[in-house]
Amino acid sequence: MELKTLEEIDIQLAPTSKINEVDFDNLTFGTTFTDHMLVCDFADGEWKKPVIQPYAPMTIDPSAKVFHYGQAIFEGMKAYKDANDAVWLFRPDQNYERFNKSAVRMAMPEVPEEVFLGGLKRLLEIEKDWVKKGLGNSLYIRPFMIATGPGVIAAPAKFYRFMIILSPAKAYYSGEVKVLIAEHYSRAANGGIGAAKAAGNYAAQFYPTQLANEQGFQQVIWTDDATHTKLEEAGTMNVFIRINDTLYTAPTSERILDGVTRKSVIELAKRENIAVEERSVLVTELVEAAKNDSLKEIFGAGTAAVINPIAGFSYKGDYFELPKLADSIAVEIKTKLTNIQNKLAEDTFGWTVKI
Amino acid sequence: MELKTLEEIDIQLAPTSKINEVDFDNLTFGTTFTDHMLVCDFADGEWKKPVIQPYAPMTIDPSAKVFHYGQAIFEGMKAYKDANDAVWLFRPDQNYERFNKSAVRMAMPEVPEEVFLGGLKRLLEIEKDWVKKGLGNSLYIRPFMIATGPGVIAAPAKFYRFMIILSPAKAYYSGEVKVLIAEHYSRAANGGIGAAKAAGNYAAQFYPTQLANEQGFQQVIWTDDATHTKLEEAGTMNVFIRINDTLYTAPTSERILDGVTRKSVIELAKRENIAVEERSVLVTELVEAAKNDSLKEIFGAGTAAVINPIAGFSYKGDYFELPKLADSIAVEIKTKLTNIQNKLAEDTFGWTVKI
Ligand SMILES: Cc1ncc(COP(=O)(O)O)c(C=O)c1O
Ligand SMILES: Cc1ncc(COP(=O)(O)O)c(C=O)c1O
Repeated sequence: MELKTLEEIDIQLAPTSKINEVDFDNLTFGTTFTDHMLVCDFADGEWKKPVIQPYAPMTIDPSAKVFHYGQAIFEGMKAYKDANDAVWLFRPDQNYERFNKSAVRMAMPEVPEEVFLGGLKRLLEIEKDWVKKGLGNSLYIRPFMIATGPGVIAAPAKFYRFMIILSPAKAYYSGEVKVLIAEHYSRAANGGIGAAKAAGNYAAQFYPTQLANEQGFQQVIWTDDATHTKLEEAGTMNVFIRINDTLYTAPTSERILDGVTRKSVIELAKRENIAVEERSVLVTELVEAAKNDSLKEIFGAGTAAVINPIAGFSYKGDYFELPKLADSIAVEIKTKLTNIQNKLAEDTFGWTVKI
Repeated sequence: MELKTLEEIDIQLAPTSKINEVDFDNLTFGTTFTDHMLVCDFADGEWKKPVIQPYAPMTIDPSAKVFHYGQAIFEGMKAYKDANDAVWLFRPDQNYERFNKSAVRMAMPEVPEEVFLGGLKRLLEIEKDWVKKGLGNSLYIRPFMIATGPGVIAAPAKFYRFMIILSPAKAYYSGEVKVLIAEHYSRAANGGIGAAKAAGNYAAQFYPTQLANEQGFQQVIWTDDATHTKLEEAGTMNVFIRINDTLYTAPTSERILDGVTRKSVIELAKRENIAVEERSVLVTELVEAAKNDSLKEIFGAGTAAVINPIAGFSYKGDYFELPKLADSIAVEIKTKLTNIQNKLAEDTFGWTVKI
């Protein structure tokens, strides 16, 4: 895949750069932003000319529908720099497609490829110094769209803003991750918006996640809301469960995000002859497997964290510690995947795209 | 109930008023705003001094969590003016309590009563000319809170903004309302945020509602997401079903908003010796009742629309027209309720509160 350059764009460069003020060894995920952002407005039924401008607060009406009705979607991707200072994206076509699927589900206009991917290319060319070399370093990319149209009536807006902001990143999660299996709260409904990267899906998880945090768990693994018997996914990661030598992950559905990392893990596992099955794992199966020691690993998979091994899980008050393996599939897959992303290993899949 | 005045407030009056530019006979719901708004920021773990200032766009960081994670809640209430030019609210304590319940569910700080109700009183004193006399006229009140704190990491913000904006209103819905009973899409999950007035609940309904609109239905009546067999509520209204001479409405739950109009209709019906039962009505029951003519009425109940009679419903491709009754309970209750709200009838319940 090759990214087309977007020619129709206004570029207003920042007079100075903040880059020398940033301590790249001590970054808190998602809090430092680069010098520029891309802004593209939708009005009168069409997308206007995109603008790259200095990153700055923006002006918005208090009645904008994003504030009242949560009409907002986003994506999360990363750029990596190889040993020769070239900048690479990982499967950006997947994020672009998913973004527009989210847009349709949220009754928002789809964003043209030249604005989303072509605009991103222009932005990354300008911000390339913000992408640092070395495994673990990346530039987190946040494309998003908000309903800027005014009016406190629950109906889709007529005005939207698409933006891309960039944030240099180290690894997302640190330390041991213990998870709580949801017994009562849920992330998504059948016929709901769980498969969309819709803003509202995330705030909905904050309170139950806070309750889990208070009990010493960093994350929640959600279960289906109707029966709470099937394992679904975590807040910002799909979940893989290794029982004996097979990996299981929930099939994508209306309730589950079709993760780019998830599908890459599946393809990578297949290439490595690791058995992988897309099927719902029951909580009872998980507990049973933990008890009879056939449960070997659980890990999360998502752009921010890449692969996140889980140290243990709690269900109905019982805590199950996972074994510490010498031959962890999570570690193997993480290495293989990050090597591809960072251009340290050959990309036999054609996943990486040069800027 | 009496509203305490908020003393600790900054007031910056607009130099001129827009009121003479407004055509109060031709208002589109939720699009015209008064001269002032109330703004109160939360930072460093506390609410700062509220400010009443001219209604105007505001400045906000592109990484504010409201844009990315939908951490936002709102309320909807109305002010009415009586024959003696006094301004009245309807059960504002209920909206205040519900707002803070929503805040807890969305991991947002609760707003103090003196800011929410005391601040509203101050704002309405300033904007009293925007409340017009006469049945059908009201000033729609939109208190809301957004996460202004920056950062593209899915976790609760540290900074919030509470605001109140005001919009003069006529009736919300016009014309015949035909509804579609949801077969596939849903509004809320068990263990989800359906009972909160969370922004994300509303955009989630836009797409399925658009699909219904295209088929000639103005609204969707949602069913439970697990089985799609139980009738729940509409997008911004609770739903009442009259079979023979009994009114049925779904019990409030995690999936259903505890509507102020709903509870007022129940109390009013009881006073008038109209049988009313809070229990789930099955879609099959509704269809059966329509077929054997025991189904007399369906109506929505919500602040914006007050009482909204439904002309007919569609389920699995079959359309059922409702009878046009001379002795409609919807009409009777609407009259009684709006008379109380507008101070045209005695308020035996103590629901109305003077500004
Ligand atoms: C709910 C949810 N699940 C899973 C993922 C992982 O998806 P991806 O691998 O595309 O980042 C994300 C996104 O980060 C997410 O928000
Ligand atoms: C989902 C939903 N149901 C019902 C209602 C009716 O509630 P109330 O009567 O308090 O306005 C609303 C609010 O307007 C709502 O948003």
